[in-house]
Amino acid sequence: MTEKPSKFTMLRSLLTGPGTNFIMEAHNGLSAKIVEEAGFDGIWASGLSISAALGVRDNNELSWTQVLDVLEFMSDATSIPILVDGDTGYGNFNNFRRLVKKLCQRQIAGVCIEDKVFPKTNSFLGDGQQLTEIEEFCGKIKAGKDNQEHDDFSIVARIEALIAGRGMDEALRRAEAYADAGADAIVIHSKKADPDEILTFCRLWDHRVPVVLIPTKYYRTPTDTLREAGASLIIWANHNLRSSIQAMRATSARLKQHETLIDVESEVAPLNDVFSLADAGELEEAETRYLSGQARPNAVVLAA
Amino acid sequence: MTEKPSKFTMLRSLLTGPGTNFIMEAHNGLSAKIVEEAGFDGIWASGLSISAALGVRDNNELSWTQVLDVLEFMSDATSIPILVDGDTGYGNFNNFRRLVKKLCQRQIAGVCIEDKVFPKTNSFLGDGQQLTEIEEFCGKIKAGKDNQEHDDFSIVARIEALIAGRGMDEALRRAEAYADAGADAIVIHSKKADPDEILTFCRLWDHRVPVVLIPTKYYRTPTDTLREAGASLIIWANHNLRSSIQAMRATSARLKQHETLIDVESEVAPLNDVFSLADAGELEEAETRYLSGQARPNAVVLAA
Amino acid sequence: MTEKPSKFTMLRSLLTGPGTNFIMEAHNGLSAKIVEEAGFDGIWASGLSISAALGVRDNNELSWTQVLDVLEFMSDATSIPILVDGDTGYGNFNNFRRLVKKLCQRQIAGVCIEDKVFPKTNSFLGDGQQLTEIEEFCGKIKAGKDNQEHDDFSIVARIEALIAGRGMDEALRRAEAYADAGADAIVIHSKKADPDEILTFCRLWDHRVPVVLIPTKYYRTPTDTLREAGASLIIWANHNLRSSIQAMRATSARLKQHETLIDVESEVAPLNDVFSLADAGELEEAETRYLSGQARPNAVVLAA
Amino acid sequence: MTEKPSKFTMLRSLLTGPGTNFIMEAHNGLSAKIVEEAGFDGIWASGLSISAALGVRDNNELSWTQVLDVLEFMSDATSIPILVDGDTGYGNFNNFRRLVKKLCQRQIAGVCIEDKVFPKTNSFLGDGQQLTEIEEFCGKIKAGKDNQEHDDFSIVARIEALIAGRGMDEALRRAEAYADAGADAIVIHSKKADPDEILTFCRLWDHRVPVVLIPTKYYRTPTDTLREAGASLIIWANHNLRSSIQAMRATSARLKQHETLIDVESEVAPLNDVFSLADAGELEEAETRYLSGQARPNAVVLAA
Repeated sequence: MTEKPSKFTMLRSLLTGPGTNFIMEAHNGLSAKIVEEAGFDGIWASGLSISAALGVRDNNELSWTQVLDVLEFMSDATSIPILVDGDTGYGNFNNFRRLVKKLCQRQIAGVCIEDKVFPKTNSFLGDGQQLTEIEEFCGKIKAGKDNQEHDDFSIVARIEALIAGRGMDEALRRAEAYADAGADAIVIHSKKADPDEILTFCRLWDHRVPVVLIPTKYYRTPTDTLREAGASLIIWANHNLRSSIQAMRATSARLKQHETLIDVESEVAPLNDVFSLADAGELEEAETRYLSGQARPNAVVLAA
Repeated sequence: MTEKPSKFTMLRSLLTGPGTNFIMEAHNGLSAKIVEEAGFDGIWASGLSISAALGVRDNNELSWTQVLDVLEFMSDATSIPILVDGDTGYGNFNNFRRLVKKLCQRQIAGVCIEDKVFPKTNSFLGDGQQLTEIEEFCGKIKAGKDNQEHDDFSIVARIEALIAGRGMDEALRRAEAYADAGADAIVIHSKKADPDEILTFCRLWDHRVPVVLIPTKYYRTPTDTLREAGASLIIWANHNLRSSIQAMRATSARLKQHETLIDVESEVAPLNDVFSLADAGELEEAETRYLSGQARPNAVVLAA
Repeated sequence: MTEKPSKFTMLRSLLTGPGTNFIMEAHNGLSAKIVEEAGFDGIWASGLSISAALGVRDNNELSWTQVLDVLEFMSDATSIPILVDGDTGYGNFNNFRRLVKKLCQRQIAGVCIEDKVFPKTNSFLGDGQQLTEIEEFCGKIKAGKDNQEHDDFSIVARIEALIAGRGMDEALRRAEAYADAGADAIVIHSKKADPDEILTFCRLWDHRVPVVLIPTKYYRTPTDTLREAGASLIIWANHNLRSSIQAMRATSARLKQHETLIDVESEVAPLNDVFSLADAGELEEAETRYLSGQARPNAVVLAA
Repeated sequence: MTEKPSKFTMLRSLLTGPGTNFIMEAHNGLSAKIVEEAGFDGIWASGLSISAALGVRDNNELSWTQVLDVLEFMSDATSIPILVDGDTGYGNFNNFRRLVKKLCQRQIAGVCIEDKVFPKTNSFLGDGQQLTEIEEFCGKIKAGKDNQEHDDFSIVARIEALIAGRGMDEALRRAEAYADAGADAIVIHSKKADPDEILTFCRLWDHRVPVVLIPTKYYRTPTDTLREAGASLIIWANHNLRSSIQAMRATSARLKQHETLIDVESEVAPLNDVFSLADAGELEEAETRYLSGQARPNAVVLAA
């Protein structure tokens, strides 16, 4: 009988295994459970989504420990690996290696960092994205790799050169340097609707380390095109968050207008699903083991 | 020109003013913004929803400071008052008065506590709900009222006697005692689909303090019936959470199956809505005031 | 070459090994380092001391996650095992098993829980200490043991029967029951200056599981007496905290009165000790590896 | 009858009032209480001390919210104003204005920020301290002042030009600029044992805003000399921490060596002082008001 691989090993396999794998955004324990329930093999803990869910901007308005607290809930709630969007690493190499240590302790399988400066601005906002020096970013990657507490923890280096308008050569130069520094994979990111620059990069990149793609802006590109380009991992980056916004706006508006639940009840998840998502049944069962009779609130239910 | 009333005063007015008011559930900064955006006058920070969103059970699996952290994000993100579901107050009178102090500091306008024992079980689970002694609960209410840092902070006492099968007399006796102890309003709670016991209570209750209703189980009851019964405040208790579950499940399932964003993009909130909900525009504008030119990532956008 | 044992195994060895071992109180990362530096084999994370250091009472005024945050700093700062004072386990069996899981994740080697009710009162205050039911407490121990994530995690059951005035028979009955439920050791606690009841208990106890003593009140008893009575572990429970109070009061008073550092400088630890306790040297060295030249604040120092 | 001034106003008075005032370092709730107990008019929440107490380095290894959590305990535990060492403001103007808002909410009376880059290095380490651009730092000050939630919140700008070897002219230029940007006071900092550069600065500075001095390195300088130089506020910056290190090391070493409390008991603060520092008496008294008889653990004590 073989033991189940660790979450670290599971993510590493998604990155290095054959074919193209998919991971889906989550931003709290609940959405993480839903991603696992849907059958995905991994979770993308999006910085944008986590910030938005908490009500703040994607500009490092959250402290890194506030993000860590969210990740811990997500990790506790699921059994598939989490790749976290680590922004720029929350400071210099020293801040980043601390983060890596804490992520390993929370069983977060990998972190993606981008070569911009702290505090970050979302890649899809503005035109003046400032890149960090290559050497500085490589030092950060090395420090992370040297301090990871599990061998299969993954550091994914996200290249923002195309987004910053610095051109293909710069993007390739950075990819090479980051791979040399020890990155386990790279993300080549783009804010264009047209996938040309992404496809060009993939063609020119020697694929020494796996390529991860985030087709948020070039979402019309058929997935087979990305597959053929050699993507090891594709991230659906923020669509749970955005679907929840759509739904909550509709429900809130309807309740505000009609002032009754009658229309709403059948369109939302049943209350029992809230309980079963939290595994209320396990607690009921545990109460029979660990609580004496009179202290068991669910005693009658279980007898029924 | 008159100053805007505090959030504390705004909630007190919802409780004590004429007619029936409505507040809507939220569980994080984002959903709180959506409740405000929909035009509601207040927010219900549901214990069930906050627990579920973080991925844990509604059995005080969260520490009280973890709940407080969520509330702070919600309060920072909105300008309407928040009434928080404070479960049983997280311990005895001393724990509760500490909570009240912290809630006031975070500008949370009021707290609802229920007369059960710590750790709580959700009212809709099991049949063995254990009630706390009346005297003990009254001490808790008094301690809270004596330690609130704003005069208009509200303490709402939630009566679980009907849910615990203890009968109407017990419910009325408790309502009297809690009002005497200083409760600013009461919730009479029921897990029946039929509103009879709620309506009976309202008829017998002398209405010395306002009545709050949570028609989660008796959702088919026309709102006018509750209005005529004298409800001062009605809470839509968990429907943002439940609509987000429905939507995220659908989106995750579709992406898992079809492996493409093409079908999904038009059904979720646009990416720009995520930025505007976080008020990205205010930061862009602030950058022109506080950042020198070269450090402004959004410089070109603003010039455009 | 043999691998270093885990912190869990190290604590278990202190409890079960031959002779009498000693662990010393700490209440934050700094005091934990000092305990290790002094040569102790383990750390007692005192609930009283942690509460007092943060400025609150030893009545569960801290949430369990606030305590956990302190423990994480302590664990990160040291390489010897930590036994934490877990009060009553912060609720029922379910709260306690969550705590155990989190302690294991933070590499806390063991937890001591006492058979009182939540929220606790310090054992040395008042005369009306209320004990929990034996069966309820045994359920808590079992739930903890069943959910520990490391085989050698230790649960130590602290018996408050003597403190509560419930007599020797009750104390022995509880010790038996807790050992049967899976406790890895017991603490028999006393608030008397005279060690008689402690020594009697030790003589009558069959020593099926190791005995831990906390001689805060019977501090005049020679250690050899406790050793001969069969104590496996002795805890110096709050003396780092109390010595820091003494010292800070003296220093603050002197500075207030004399308004000069001249008298004070030679009586406090040198500033460089603050840096070396935090291992500033390691960071300097890391900067040479991970930072390019111009970004290294300590570059010149290292060259010197 | 006049109301007590707010903590904000109290700190502002210390800065702008006649003569030279003194504030003393604290790093947690306990040391903050001791500073107040000693009769000081204010507290210096030292970044170095807070980091060291938690067991980490003074290089922004703590997140800003971890520091905030410490400050909240300190503020809750005391009634005198706290000036916090805000390092470089934890990022850019946007991070800093968020910090200012949170500090106001926690009743922290003022913040001192220094003109270095994030993450910071302690001023007494290394020779390569890098300064931020004047314009960037002024933007930060302005953003802080524009977002403070209390009119009397103070922002103190700390000038590191002398420490960075940039000379007196640069120091004066920066002082001017920071005062123009709205700083309520400045710190001129030095790492020399000789106070000459400090005294020269004070003589040349037009004193448009008050000057704060931190004589950690030039501690031999008579306080009257600093007074005559025009210091409005003098900070004893880390001496509670350093005295606690000295004392805990001595106590731990002694207990390790002698394995008995007999020698130690009389040299540490009595256990009762731990309880009285936490105001255990207030809780006893509250129990008589808010708890029914049988639930009062201290009932007998009070009757005695």
